[in-house]
Amino acid sequence: MNPVLVELTRGVLVESRHRGAIAVADADGRLVWSCGDVGAPIYPRSAVKMLQALALVETGAADAYGLADKELALACASHSGEPFHVETVRAWLARIGLGEEVLACGAPTAPDGRPLTRAHHNCSGKHTGFLTAARQLGADPAGYQRPEHPVQQRVLATIAEMSGVDLASMPVAVDGCTAPAVALPLGPLATAFARIADPTRLPAERALAAQRLDAAVKAEPLYVAGTGRSCTALIGAAAGAASVKTGAEGVYVAAISSLGLGVALKIDDGAARASEAAIAAVMQALGVVDAADPAIHALLQADIPNSVGEAVGVRQASGWLRASLRDLPRNRA
Amino acid sequence: MNPVLVELTRGVLVESRHRGAIAVADADGRLVWSCGDVGAPIYPRSAVKMLQALALVETGAADAYGLADKELALACASHSGEPFHVETVRAWLARIGLGEEVLACGAPTAPDGRPLTRAHHNCSGKHTGFLTAARQLGADPAGYQRPEHPVQQRVLATIAEMSGVDLASMPVAVDGCTAPAVALPLGPLATAFARIADPTRLPAERALAAQRLDAAVKAEPLYVAGTGRSCTALIGAAAGAASVKTGAEGVYVAAISSLGLGVALKIDDGAARASEAAIAAVMQALGVVDAADPAIHALLQADIPNSVGEAVGVRQASGWLRASLRDLPRNRA
Repeated sequence: MNPVLVELTRGVLVESRHRGAIAVADADGRLVWSCGDVGAPIYPRSAVKMLQALALVETGAADAYGLADKELALACASHSGEPFHVETVRAWLARIGLGEEVLACGAPTAPDGRPLTRAHHNCSGKHTGFLTAARQLGADPAGYQRPEHPVQQRVLATIAEMSGVDLASMPVAVDGCTAPAVALPLGPLATAFARIADPTRLPAERALAAQRLDAAVKAEPLYVAGTGRSCTALIGAAAGAASVKTGAEGVYVAAISSLGLGVALKIDDGAARASEAAIAAVMQALGVVDAADPAIHALLQADIPNSVGEAVGVRQASGWLRASLRDLPRNRA
Repeated sequence: MNPVLVELTRGVLVESRHRGAIAVADADGRLVWSCGDVGAPIYPRSAVKMLQALALVETGAADAYGLADKELALACASHSGEPFHVETVRAWLARIGLGEEVLACGAPTAPDGRPLTRAHHNCSGKHTGFLTAARQLGADPAGYQRPEHPVQQRVLATIAEMSGVDLASMPVAVDGCTAPAVALPLGPLATAFARIADPTRLPAERALAAQRLDAAVKAEPLYVAGTGRSCTALIGAAAGAASVKTGAEGVYVAAISSLGLGVALKIDDGAARASEAAIAAVMQALGVVDAADPAIHALLQADIPNSVGEAVGVRQASGWLRASLRDLPRNRA
């Protein structure tokens, strides 16, 4: 049974509670700290985008097509479809000689019901990264999202190497964007991100690719998510000490380069409001973000307003989690 | 520890799970069936709107101002702010000589960011009901939403009588719409709705008020929620056998008049997607809604689509809950 990580309190009573599990690991695959079941497979969903993008760099595609930090950050992004995201994806697609219509993610719909184009899809950067790798490998772009395609085979092998998990023993489902959704336990998922945070023991080519993606994400946090989003706020607030990425259904990962650690967490019920509060609490405990930063404070201790703007409740990490996190190693930088 | 009531499955793996508790009670306050902790106080939030509206009828306000089923359904509603909701609320306010500006719920914002007026607020019918009762009692409309106002004092006393709970022993917080948010355990909350479903042992005036509200909700399900909403679908599908109401943070109640039972449930983590699936499963088990109805099937077994519309997962009541619900009494009508 996983512990309660995040609570919503209204008046004197806890109104809702979110359970989950958290793994903090080092690059050798040692669990430095954990709570809950970190051995059961979960779907990391979009949280593995940095791992999926390693092939884009390692194939030579990123260099061949002159990708800069913005494109690399978009390959690791679940972006908000803001104009600068969409325009960068379109220009990138043009550079590899393809149009939006090849993006297998399909086109989303705006909150007000307006139809949008495929470049607006939050995964369009990841898909464009897959297509760029396909170009570089001389593979047919058609079907690039299918598990048997050479690009996905390479991506799956990379995730297996980074996590140390034999993916043949894990279910592979279909993600929201049609790409393969791998399953991994939180422990190995945290290890994979520890190896991005501390790539010193990776093969040289892999280490360079990991560092380049990590640097791109840190340089362009707005391209990893968007205006007002938690990933953008956390990367910005960490000021070079960490990269992070959320995944659907309550997943969050972080590569804490200042400590050489990886973090992976999953909220049992899939709530993003809870995964955001939990990763912020972990990063605060690690000393890489500061509650004095208003964007971080809003994640750590979110007022629940009524309809006229008065705070009538609060959402925050549970007392148990806040106390337990005191055992984490802490950044002294 | 509450059991898992609803699961999301992607591929072969359960991706997310929602725990919670369910109480099914009769009008004598006997628990007919339950799972999880039904003795701990929870905030029913908007799920108590039918109980809050009893005073509107019992004070004579509904007759004095000629309220029809649509207005009474709106008093019990969390409506979607569709034109017919907003126009009915505005015309009702005009009838009691007040304007939208007196609604303490404030004005919401449309999904596309457009500012809306107070009559659009999902609770505007409830608030107009409070104001109509204030008029009838000769009380100052100002401050009608405060716990010490004569209208709220009467509403709180009614909820205490219907549930059998001394509210002095329970926390009272502030709801999203600024009105008092009472706390009740699920058992007594189910009892209160059993007494709407089977009002035969209530005092005569209370029984008539309960029947009138129940009839109004059943006659005008679109005024209780709106187009495509779960409350509207469930009331319509029950075809006179039940009234239902959702509440924020994963609450659902039902008054099953065909069986004289009340149902109350709360999802621990507050997810509406889970409370909808759970109440649909309970009502199917009670025999008052049919999975052959497409709107009910969509609540019972919701496909999780990817971005090109293929089903890649499913959300439904857990196998444990579906098996356990076989012990419920079943409507033979």
